[in-house]
Amino acid sequence: MKWCRFQSGSNVAYGVIEGDRVTAVAGSPFESHTRTATSVPLSGVKLDVPVIPPTFYAAGVNYREHVTEMAHRRGVKPEFPPQADVGYRANNALIPTGEAIVIPKDATELVQYEGELVAVIGKQCKRVSEARALDHVFGYTLGNDVSERTWQRGDRTFWRGKNTDTFKPMGPWIVTGLDPDALRVTIRLNGKEMFTYAVKDAIFGVRTFISRMSQYLTLYPGDVLWMGTDGATENMKDGDVVEVEVPEIGVLRNPVVRER
Amino acid sequence: MKWCRFQSGSNVAYGVIEGDRVTAVAGSPFESHTRTATSVPLSGVKLDVPVIPPTFYAAGVNYREHVTEMAHRRGVKPEFPPQADVGYRANNALIPTGEAIVIPKDATELVQYEGELVAVIGKQCKRVSEARALDHVFGYTLGNDVSERTWQRGDRTFWRGKNTDTFKPMGPWIVTGLDPDALRVTIRLNGKEMFTYAVKDAIFGVRTFISRMSQYLTLYPGDVLWMGTDGATENMKDGDVVEVEVPEIGVLRNPVVRER
Repeated sequence: MKWCRFQSGSNVAYGVIEGDRVTAVAGSPFESHTRTATSVPLSGVKLDVPVIPPTFYAAGVNYREHVTEMAHRRGVKPEFPPQADVGYRANNALIPTGEAIVIPKDATELVQYEGELVAVIGKQCKRVSEARALDHVFGYTLGNDVSERTWQRGDRTFWRGKNTDTFKPMGPWIVTGLDPDALRVTIRLNGKEMFTYAVKDAIFGVRTFISRMSQYLTLYPGDVLWMGTDGATENMKDGDVVEVEVPEIGVLRNPVVRER
Repeated sequence: MKWCRFQSGSNVAYGVIEGDRVTAVAGSPFESHTRTATSVPLSGVKLDVPVIPPTFYAAGVNYREHVTEMAHRRGVKPEFPPQADVGYRANNALIPTGEAIVIPKDATELVQYEGELVAVIGKQCKRVSEARALDHVFGYTLGNDVSERTWQRGDRTFWRGKNTDTFKPMGPWIVTGLDPDALRVTIRLNGKEMFTYAVKDAIFGVRTFISRMSQYLTLYPGDVLWMGTDGATENMKDGDVVEVEVPEIGVLRNPVVRER
Protein backbone atom coordinates (compact mmCIF):
# COMPACT_ATOMS: atom_id res chain seq x y z
CA MET A 1 0.00 0.00 0.00
CA LYS A 2 0.99 3.60 -0.61
CA TRP A 3 0.17 6.10 2.12
CA CYS A 4 0.49 9.86 1.70
CA ARG A 5 -0.43 13.03 3.57
CA PHE A 6 -2.00 15.75 1.47
CA GLN A 7 -3.76 19.07 1.61
CA SER A 8 -7.48 18.33 1.64
CA GLY A 9 -9.38 21.62 1.75
CA SER A 10 -7.98 23.56 4.68
CA ASN A 11 -6.79 20.40 6.46
CA VAL A 12 -3.98 17.92 6.02
CA ALA A 13 -5.29 14.35 5.72
CA TYR A 14 -3.73 10.94 5.29
CA GLY A 15 -4.59 9.27 2.02
CA VAL A 16 -4.23 5.93 0.27
CA ILE A 17 -2.88 6.09 -3.28
CA GLU A 18 -4.27 3.57 -5.77
CA GLY A 19 -3.25 4.02 -9.38
CA ASP A 20 -3.61 7.71 -10.12
CA ARG A 21 -6.11 8.50 -7.37
CA VAL A 22 -5.91 9.36 -3.68
CA THR A 23 -8.62 8.34 -1.23
CA ALA A 24 -8.70 10.46 1.92
CA VAL A 25 -8.60 8.55 5.19
CA ALA A 26 -10.04 9.63 8.53
CA GLY A 27 -7.55 8.91 11.32
CA SER A 28 -3.97 7.84 10.79
CA PRO A 29 -2.37 4.73 9.32
CA PHE A 30 -0.91 3.96 12.77
CA GLU A 31 -4.25 3.90 14.55
CA SER A 32 -7.83 3.07 13.67
CA HIS A 33 -8.79 4.69 10.40
CA THR A 34 -11.52 4.56 7.79
CA ARG A 35 -11.59 5.48 4.13
CA THR A 36 -13.75 8.49 3.37
CA ALA A 37 -15.84 9.09 0.25
CA THR A 38 -13.32 11.70 -0.92
CA SER A 39 -11.28 10.43 -3.87
CA VAL A 40 -9.24 12.85 -5.97
CA PRO A 41 -6.67 12.57 -8.78
CA LEU A 42 -3.12 12.27 -7.40
CA SER A 43 -1.93 14.78 -9.99
CA GLY A 44 -4.19 17.43 -8.46
CA VAL A 45 -3.17 17.15 -4.81
CA LYS A 46 -0.54 19.07 -2.90
CA LEU A 47 1.45 16.40 -1.09
CA ASP A 48 2.72 17.10 2.41
CA VAL A 49 5.50 15.33 4.34
CA PRO A 50 4.10 11.76 4.70
CA VAL A 51 4.47 11.72 8.49
CA ILE A 52 5.49 14.17 11.24
CA PRO A 53 7.67 12.01 13.48
CA PRO A 54 7.41 12.10 17.29
CA THR A 55 11.19 11.52 17.18
CA PHE A 56 13.32 12.00 14.06
CA TYR A 57 16.24 9.53 14.03
CA ALA A 58 19.10 9.45 11.54
CA ALA A 59 21.85 6.83 11.16
CA GLY A 60 24.30 9.48 9.96
CA VAL A 61 27.48 7.96 8.51
CA ASN A 62 26.50 4.44 7.53
CA TYR A 63 28.06 3.62 4.14
CA ARG A 64 31.75 2.88 3.52
CA GLU A 65 32.24 4.74 0.27
CA HIS A 66 30.57 7.86 1.68
CA VAL A 67 32.80 7.80 4.78
CA THR A 68 35.92 7.17 2.69
CA GLU A 69 35.18 9.81 0.07
CA MET A 70 34.18 12.56 2.52
CA ALA A 71 37.28 11.88 4.67
CA HIS A 72 39.48 11.97 1.56
CA ARG A 73 38.14 15.42 0.62
CA ARG A 74 38.91 16.75 4.06
CA GLY A 75 42.37 15.17 4.07
CA VAL A 76 41.62 13.02 7.12
CA LYS A 77 41.58 9.27 7.70
CA PRO A 78 38.18 7.59 7.26
CA GLU A 79 36.61 6.48 10.53
CA PHE A 80 33.86 3.89 10.40
CA PRO A 81 31.26 3.86 13.16
CA PRO A 82 31.98 1.02 15.61
CA GLN A 83 28.31 0.51 16.45
CA ALA A 84 24.81 1.44 15.27
CA ASP A 85 24.75 4.67 17.30
CA VAL A 86 21.79 6.67 16.07
CA GLY A 87 21.55 10.46 15.85
CA TYR A 88 18.79 13.02 15.44
CA ARG A 89 17.40 15.48 12.95
CA ALA A 90 14.70 18.13 13.57
CA ASN A 91 11.10 18.48 12.39
CA ASN A 92 11.42 22.20 11.61
CA ALA A 93 13.55 21.28 8.60
CA LEU A 94 11.07 18.88 6.95
CA ILE A 95 9.58 19.75 3.56
CA PRO A 96 7.56 17.56 1.17
CA THR A 97 8.42 16.63 -2.38
CA GLY A 98 8.04 19.59 -4.74
CA GLU A 99 8.94 22.27 -2.21
CA ALA A 100 12.14 24.27 -2.50
CA ILE A 101 15.32 23.64 -0.54
CA VAL A 102 16.21 27.22 0.43
CA ILE A 103 19.94 27.92 0.87
CA PRO A 104 20.43 30.79 3.33
CA LYS A 105 22.31 33.88 2.16
CA ASP A 106 25.26 33.27 4.44
CA ALA A 107 25.75 29.59 3.49
CA THR A 108 28.84 28.66 1.47
CA GLU A 109 28.65 26.81 -1.86
CA LEU A 110 29.11 23.51 -0.03
CA VAL A 111 25.40 22.70 0.32
CA GLN A 112 25.05 19.04 -0.65
CA TYR A 113 22.39 16.35 -1.04
CA GLU A 114 22.40 12.97 0.70
CA GLY A 115 19.74 10.68 -0.76
CA GLU A 116 18.59 7.94 1.58
CA LEU A 117 16.03 5.35 2.54
CA VAL A 118 13.74 6.16 5.48
CA ALA A 119 12.10 3.49 7.64
CA VAL A 120 8.82 4.54 9.28
CA ILE A 121 7.98 2.80 12.56
CA GLY A 122 4.47 1.33 12.71
CA LYS A 123 4.26 -0.35 16.09
CA GLN A 124 5.56 0.68 19.50
CA CYS A 125 8.51 -1.46 20.48
CA LYS A 126 11.17 -1.89 23.15
CA ARG A 127 13.92 -4.52 23.25
CA VAL A 128 13.22 -6.25 19.98
CA SER A 129 15.61 -8.74 18.42
CA GLU A 130 17.13 -8.16 15.00
CA ALA A 131 15.04 -11.09 13.78
CA ARG A 132 11.79 -9.34 14.80
CA ALA A 133 12.84 -5.74 14.14
CA LEU A 134 11.20 -5.35 10.73
CA ASP A 135 7.83 -6.46 12.17
CA HIS A 136 7.70 -2.98 13.73
CA VAL A 137 8.30 -1.07 10.51
CA PHE A 138 5.19 0.36 8.86
CA GLY A 139 6.82 1.16 5.52
CA TYR A 140 9.53 3.09 3.71
CA THR A 141 9.88 6.54 2.22
CA LEU A 142 12.81 8.66 0.99
CA GLY A 143 14.84 11.47 2.53
CA ASN A 144 17.39 14.03 1.40
CA ASP A 145 19.72 14.87 4.30
CA VAL A 146 20.80 18.27 2.92
CA SER A 147 24.00 19.47 4.60
CA GLU A 148 26.02 22.69 4.62
CA ARG A 149 29.48 21.16 5.00
CA THR A 150 31.33 24.12 6.51
CA TRP A 151 28.65 24.60 9.16
CA GLN A 152 28.52 20.85 9.75
CA ARG A 153 32.22 20.74 10.66
CA GLY A 154 31.97 23.34 13.43
CA ASP A 155 28.59 22.10 14.55
CA ARG A 156 28.67 19.23 17.03
CA THR A 157 24.88 18.90 17.11
CA PHE A 158 24.26 19.61 13.39
CA TRP A 159 21.63 22.19 14.44
CA ARG A 160 22.52 24.52 11.58
CA GLY A 161 24.57 22.37 9.19
CA LYS A 162 21.76 19.84 8.78
CA ASN A 163 18.62 21.30 10.37
CA THR A 164 18.26 24.72 8.79
CA ASP A 165 14.64 25.14 7.60
CA THR A 166 13.93 23.17 4.35
CA PHE A 167 17.09 21.01 4.70
CA LYS A 168 15.13 17.77 5.24
CA PRO A 169 12.96 16.89 2.22
CA MET A 170 11.02 13.66 2.95
CA GLY A 171 8.56 11.78 0.73
CA PRO A 172 6.86 11.48 -1.65
CA TRP A 173 4.82 8.87 0.28
CA ILE A 174 5.23 5.72 2.37
CA VAL A 175 5.15 2.28 0.74
CA THR A 176 4.42 -0.81 2.85
CA GLY A 177 5.44 -4.42 2.29
CA LEU A 178 8.98 -3.80 0.99
CA ASP A 179 12.18 -5.67 1.79
CA PRO A 180 14.72 -2.89 2.51
CA ASP A 181 17.66 -5.10 1.49
CA ALA A 182 16.26 -5.44 -2.02
CA LEU A 183 16.16 -1.69 -2.66
CA ARG A 184 18.57 0.56 -4.55
CA VAL A 185 18.76 4.35 -4.12
CA THR A 186 19.57 6.62 -7.07
CA ILE A 187 20.37 10.33 -6.76
CA ARG A 188 20.01 12.71 -9.73
CA LEU A 189 20.95 16.36 -10.09
CA ASN A 190 19.23 18.19 -12.96
CA GLY A 191 18.32 14.83 -14.46
CA LYS A 192 21.86 13.46 -14.39
CA GLU A 193 22.52 10.35 -12.33
CA MET A 194 25.08 11.29 -9.66
CA PHE A 195 25.23 8.06 -7.68
CA THR A 196 23.40 4.80 -7.16
CA TYR A 197 23.82 2.30 -4.34
CA ALA A 198 22.28 -0.79 -2.80
CA VAL A 199 20.62 -0.20 0.59
CA LYS A 200 22.02 -3.55 1.79
CA ASP A 201 25.60 -2.21 1.57
CA ALA A 202 24.99 -0.20 4.73
CA ILE A 203 27.47 -0.72 7.56
CA PHE A 204 24.46 -1.35 9.83
CA GLY A 205 21.05 -2.25 8.40
CA VAL A 206 17.53 -1.33 9.49
CA ARG A 207 17.26 -4.47 11.65
CA THR A 208 20.49 -3.71 13.52
CA PHE A 209 19.57 -0.09 14.19
CA ILE A 210 16.05 -0.85 15.41
CA SER A 211 17.17 -3.69 17.63
CA ARG A 212 20.06 -1.73 19.19
CA MET A 213 18.08 1.50 19.65
CA SER A 214 15.21 -0.39 21.24
CA GLN A 215 17.44 -1.83 23.96
CA TYR A 216 17.39 1.64 25.54
CA LEU A 217 14.50 3.54 24.03
CA THR A 218 10.93 2.95 22.99
CA LEU A 219 10.17 3.43 19.33
CA TYR A 220 6.74 4.86 18.60
CA PRO A 221 4.43 4.74 15.55
CA GLY A 222 5.43 7.50 13.17
CA ASP A 223 9.06 7.72 14.33
CA VAL A 224 11.36 7.82 11.32
CA LEU A 225 14.85 6.40 10.88
CA TRP A 226 16.93 7.85 8.04
CA MET A 227 19.46 5.25 6.96
CA GLY A 228 22.36 7.38 5.65
CA THR A 229 23.71 7.80 2.14
CA ASP A 230 26.53 6.26 0.13
CA GLY A 231 29.08 7.76 -2.23
CA ALA A 232 30.47 11.22 -2.75
CA THR A 233 28.00 14.10 -2.63
CA GLU A 234 28.13 17.26 -4.72
CA ASN A 235 27.08 20.88 -4.31
CA MET A 236 23.60 22.08 -5.22
CA LYS A 237 23.06 25.62 -6.44
CA ASP A 238 20.23 28.02 -7.16
CA GLY A 239 18.03 26.66 -9.95
CA ASP A 240 19.05 23.00 -9.55
CA VAL A 241 16.56 20.16 -9.14
CA VAL A 242 17.59 17.20 -6.96
CA GLU A 243 15.89 13.82 -7.06
CA VAL A 244 16.15 10.77 -4.83
CA GLU A 245 14.58 7.62 -6.28
CA VAL A 246 13.86 4.09 -5.22
CA PRO A 247 11.76 2.56 -8.03
CA GLU A 248 9.62 0.53 -5.60
CA ILE A 249 8.82 3.74 -3.68
CA GLY A 250 8.91 6.72 -6.06
CA VAL A 251 10.79 9.96 -6.57
CA LEU A 252 11.48 12.69 -4.00
CA ARG A 253 12.06 15.78 -6.16
CA ASN A 254 12.99 19.24 -4.85
CA PRO A 255 14.09 22.44 -6.56
CA VAL A 256 16.91 24.45 -4.99
CA VAL A 257 16.73 28.20 -4.38
CA ARG A 258 19.36 30.47 -2.88
CA GLU A 259 18.09 33.37 -0.80
CA ARG A 260 19.00 36.78 -2.18
CA MET B 1 -1.16 31.40 34.69
CA LYS B 2 -0.26 27.78 35.39
CA TRP B 3 -0.90 25.28 32.58
CA CYS B 4 -0.66 21.52 33.01
CA ARG B 5 -1.48 18.38 31.09
CA PHE B 6 -3.23 15.67 33.04
CA GLN B 7 -5.03 12.38 32.77
CA SER B 8 -8.73 13.16 32.46
CA GLY B 9 -10.65 9.89 32.21
CA SER B 10 -9.05 7.94 29.37
CA ASN B 11 -7.71 11.10 27.70
CA VAL B 12 -4.89 13.53 28.37
CA ALA B 13 -6.16 17.13 28.56
CA TYR B 14 -4.61 20.50 29.11
CA GLY B 15 -5.70 22.19 32.30
CA VAL B 16 -5.43 25.51 34.09
CA ILE B 17 -4.37 25.34 37.73
CA GLU B 18 -5.92 27.89 40.11
CA GLY B 19 -5.18 27.42 43.79
CA ASP B 20 -5.64 23.71 44.50
CA ARG B 21 -7.93 22.98 41.56
CA VAL B 22 -7.46 22.11 37.89
CA THR B 23 -9.96 23.17 35.23
CA ALA B 24 -9.81 21.05 32.09
CA VAL B 25 -9.44 22.97 28.85
CA ALA B 26 -10.62 21.89 25.40
CA GLY B 27 -7.92 22.58 22.81
CA SER B 28 -4.37 23.61 23.61
CA PRO B 29 -2.86 26.71 25.22
CA PHE B 30 -1.11 27.44 21.90
CA GLU B 31 -4.32 27.55 19.85
CA SER B 32 -7.93 28.43 20.44
CA HIS B 33 -9.17 26.81 23.62
CA THR B 34 -12.08 26.99 26.02
CA ARG B 35 -12.45 26.09 29.67
CA THR B 36 -14.72 23.11 30.25
CA ALA B 37 -17.05 22.53 33.18
CA THR B 38 -14.65 19.89 34.56
CA SER B 39 -12.84 21.12 37.66
CA VAL B 40 -11.00 18.66 39.91
CA PRO B 41 -8.66 18.91 42.91
CA LEU B 42 -5.01 19.17 41.82
CA SER B 43 -4.07 16.63 44.49
CA GLY B 44 -6.24 14.02 42.78
CA VAL B 45 -4.92 14.28 39.23
CA LYS B 46 -2.17 12.33 37.52
CA LEU B 47 0.00 14.97 35.88
CA ASP B 48 1.53 14.25 32.47
CA VAL B 49 4.47 15.98 30.78
CA PRO B 50 3.16 19.57 30.32
CA VAL B 51 3.81 19.61 26.56
CA ILE B 52 5.02 17.14 23.90
CA PRO B 53 7.38 19.29 21.83
CA PRO B 54 7.43 19.20 18.02
CA THR B 55 11.20 19.73 18.42
CA PHE B 56 13.06 19.22 21.69
CA TYR B 57 16.01 21.65 21.96
CA ALA B 58 18.67 21.70 24.66
CA ALA B 59 21.39 24.27 25.26
CA GLY B 60 23.72 21.60 26.64
CA VAL B 61 26.80 23.07 28.33
CA ASN B 62 25.79 26.61 29.24
CA TYR B 63 27.08 27.42 32.75
CA ARG B 64 30.72 28.09 33.65
CA GLU B 65 30.93 26.23 36.93
CA HIS B 66 29.36 23.13 35.39
CA VAL B 67 31.82 23.17 32.49
CA THR B 68 34.79 23.74 34.81
CA GLU B 69 33.79 21.13 37.35
CA MET B 70 32.96 18.39 34.82
CA ALA B 71 36.23 19.03 32.93
CA HIS B 72 38.17 18.92 36.22
CA ARG B 73 36.72 15.48 37.04
CA ARG B 74 37.77 14.15 33.66
CA GLY B 75 41.23 15.69 33.94
CA VAL B 76 40.76 17.84 30.85
CA LYS B 77 40.79 21.60 30.27
CA PRO B 78 37.38 23.31 30.44
CA GLU B 79 36.08 24.43 27.06
CA PHE B 80 33.37 27.07 26.98
CA PRO B 81 30.98 27.12 24.02
CA PRO B 82 31.93 29.96 21.64
CA GLN B 83 28.35 30.52 20.50
CA ALA B 84 24.75 29.63 21.42
CA ASP B 85 24.80 26.40 19.38
CA VAL B 86 21.73 24.44 20.36
CA GLY B 87 21.42 20.65 20.56
CA TYR B 88 18.60 18.12 20.75
CA ARG B 89 17.00 15.68 23.12
CA ALA B 90 14.33 13.08 22.28
CA ASN B 91 10.64 12.77 23.16
CA ASN B 92 10.85 9.05 23.97
CA ALA B 93 12.77 9.93 27.15
CA LEU B 94 10.19 12.37 28.60
CA ILE B 95 8.41 11.51 31.85
CA PRO B 96 6.25 13.73 34.09
CA THR B 97 6.84 14.64 37.71
CA GLY B 98 6.25 11.70 40.02
CA GLU B 99 7.30 9.00 37.56
CA ALA B 100 10.45 6.97 38.10
CA ILE B 101 13.78 7.55 36.40
CA VAL B 102 14.70 3.97 35.50
CA ILE B 103 18.45 3.21 35.36
CA PRO B 104 19.09 0.34 32.94
CA LYS B 105 20.83 -2.78 34.24
CA ASP B 106 23.97 -2.19 32.20
CA ALA B 107 24.42 1.47 33.18
CA THR B 108 27.34 2.37 35.44
CA GLU B 109 26.92 4.22 38.74
CA LEU B 110 27.56 7.52 36.97
CA VAL B 111 23.91 8.36 36.33
CA GLN B 112 23.54 12.03 37.28
CA TYR B 113 20.88 14.74 37.46
CA GLU B 114 21.08 18.13 35.73
CA GLY B 115 18.34 20.46 36.97
CA GLU B 116 17.41 23.21 34.56
CA LEU B 117 14.96 25.83 33.40
CA VAL B 118 12.89 25.04 30.29
CA ALA B 119 11.46 27.74 28.01
CA VAL B 120 8.30 26.74 26.11
CA ILE B 121 7.74 28.48 22.78
CA GLY B 122 4.26 30.01 22.37
CA LYS B 123 4.36 31.70 18.97
CA GLN B 124 5.90 30.64 15.69
CA CYS B 125 8.95 32.74 14.94
CA LYS B 126 11.81 33.14 12.48
CA ARG B 127 14.60 35.72 12.61
CA VAL B 128 13.66 37.46 15.82
CA SER B 129 15.94 39.91 17.55
CA GLU B 130 17.19 39.33 21.08
CA ALA B 131 15.05 42.28 22.14
CA ARG B 132 11.86 40.57 20.86
CA ALA B 133 12.81 36.95 21.59
CA LEU B 134 10.90 36.59 24.87
CA ASP B 135 7.67 37.73 23.16
CA HIS B 136 7.62 34.26 21.60
CA VAL B 137 7.95 32.34 24.86
CA PHE B 138 4.71 30.97 26.26
CA GLY B 139 6.06 30.15 29.71
CA TYR B 140 8.60 28.17 31.72
CA THR B 141 8.80 24.72 33.24
CA LEU B 142 11.59 22.55 34.69
CA GLY B 143 13.71 19.73 33.32
CA ASN B 144 16.11 17.13 34.63
CA ASP B 145 18.66 16.27 31.92
CA VAL B 146 19.58 12.86 33.38
CA SER B 147 22.90 11.62 31.97
CA GLU B 148 24.87 8.36 32.08
CA ARG B 149 28.36 9.86 32.00
CA THR B 150 30.28 6.88 30.63
CA TRP B 151 27.82 6.44 27.76
CA GLN B 152 27.77 10.19 27.17
CA ARG B 153 31.54 10.24 26.56
CA GLY B 154 31.47 7.65 23.78
CA ASP B 155 28.22 8.92 22.39
CA ARG B 156 28.53 11.79 19.92
CA THR B 157 24.75 12.18 19.55
CA PHE B 158 23.83 11.47 23.21
CA TRP B 159 21.26 8.93 21.97
CA ARG B 160 21.89 6.59 24.89
CA GLY B 161 23.79 8.71 27.42
CA LYS B 162 20.98 11.27 27.62
CA ASN B 163 17.96 9.84 25.78
CA THR B 164 17.42 6.43 27.33
CA ASP B 165 13.72 6.06 28.24
CA THR B 166 12.79 8.04 31.42
CA PHE B 167 15.99 10.16 31.32
CA LYS B 168 14.12 13.42 30.63
CA PRO B 169 11.73 14.34 33.46
CA MET B 170 9.89 17.58 32.59
CA GLY B 171 7.28 19.48 34.61
CA PRO B 172 5.41 19.82 36.86
CA TRP B 173 3.56 22.46 34.78
CA ILE B 174 4.18 25.61 32.72
CA VAL B 175 4.01 29.04 34.37
CA THR B 176 3.48 32.14 32.21
CA GLY B 177 4.50 35.74 32.85
CA LEU B 178 7.92 35.07 34.41
CA ASP B 179 11.21 36.90 33.86
CA PRO B 180 13.75 34.09 33.35
CA ASP B 181 16.63 36.26 34.59
CA ALA B 182 14.97 36.62 37.98
CA LEU B 183 14.78 32.85 38.60
CA ARG B 184 16.99 30.58 40.68
CA VAL B 185 17.17 26.79 40.27
CA THR B 186 17.73 24.50 43.27
CA ILE B 187 18.50 20.78 43.02
CA ARG B 188 17.88 18.42 45.94
CA LEU B 189 18.73 14.76 46.36
CA ASN B 190 16.78 12.96 49.10
CA GLY B 191 15.79 16.33 50.53
CA LYS B 192 19.36 17.65 50.75
CA GLU B 193 20.22 20.76 48.73
CA MET B 194 22.97 19.78 46.28
CA PHE B 195 23.30 23.00 44.32
CA THR B 196 21.56 26.28 43.65
CA TYR B 197 22.23 28.77 40.87
CA ALA B 198 20.86 31.89 39.23
CA VAL B 199 19.46 31.32 35.71
CA LYS B 200 20.98 34.64 34.63
CA ASP B 201 24.52 33.26 35.14
CA ALA B 202 24.13 31.25 31.93
CA ILE B 203 26.83 31.76 29.31
CA PHE B 204 24.01 32.42 26.82
CA GLY B 205 20.51 33.39 27.97
CA VAL B 206 17.07 32.49 26.60
CA ARG B 207 17.01 35.64 24.42
CA THR B 208 20.37 34.83 22.83
CA PHE B 209 19.45 31.22 22.07
CA ILE B 210 16.05 32.02 20.58
CA SER B 211 17.39 34.85 18.46
CA ARG B 212 20.35 32.85 17.13
CA MET B 213 18.38 29.65 16.50
CA SER B 214 15.66 31.58 14.71
CA GLN B 215 18.12 32.99 12.17
CA TYR B 216 18.14 29.51 10.58
CA LEU B 217 15.12 27.67 11.85
CA THR B 218 11.49 28.29 12.61
CA LEU B 219 10.44 27.82 16.20
CA TYR B 220 6.93 26.44 16.67
CA PRO B 221 4.41 26.60 19.52
CA GLY B 222 5.19 23.82 21.98
CA ASP B 223 8.89 23.56 21.09
CA VAL B 224 10.95 23.42 24.28
CA LEU B 225 14.40 24.81 24.99
CA TRP B 226 16.24 23.31 27.98
CA MET B 227 18.72 25.88 29.25
CA GLY B 228 21.48 23.71 30.78
CA THR B 229 22.56 23.29 34.40
CA ASP B 230 25.22 24.79 36.63
CA GLY B 231 27.57 23.26 39.17
CA ALA B 232 28.86 19.77 39.81
CA THR B 233 26.37 16.93 39.50
CA GLU B 234 26.30 13.77 41.58
CA ASN B 235 25.25 10.16 41.09
CA MET B 236 21.69 9.00 41.71
CA LYS B 237 21.01 5.46 42.88
CA ASP B 238 18.10 3.10 43.38
CA GLY B 239 15.70 4.51 45.99
CA ASP B 240 16.80 8.14 45.66
CA VAL B 241 14.40 11.01 45.08
CA VAL B 242 15.62 13.95 42.98
CA GLU B 243 13.97 17.37 42.96
CA VAL B 244 14.44 20.41 40.76
CA GLU B 245 12.80 23.57 42.09
CA VAL B 246 12.21 27.12 41.00
CA PRO B 247 9.93 28.67 43.63
CA GLU B 248 8.00 30.73 41.04
CA ILE B 249 7.30 27.52 39.05
CA GLY B 250 7.17 24.56 41.43
CA VAL B 251 8.97 21.28 42.07
CA LEU B 252 9.81 18.55 39.57
CA ARG B 253 10.20 15.44 41.75
CA ASN B 254 11.17 11.97 40.53
CA PRO B 255 12.10 8.75 42.30
CA VAL B 256 15.00 6.71 40.96
CA VAL B 257 14.83 2.98 40.32
CA ARG B 258 17.54 0.67 39.04
CA GLU B 259 16.41 -2.20 36.85
CA ARG B 260 17.18 -5.62 38.30
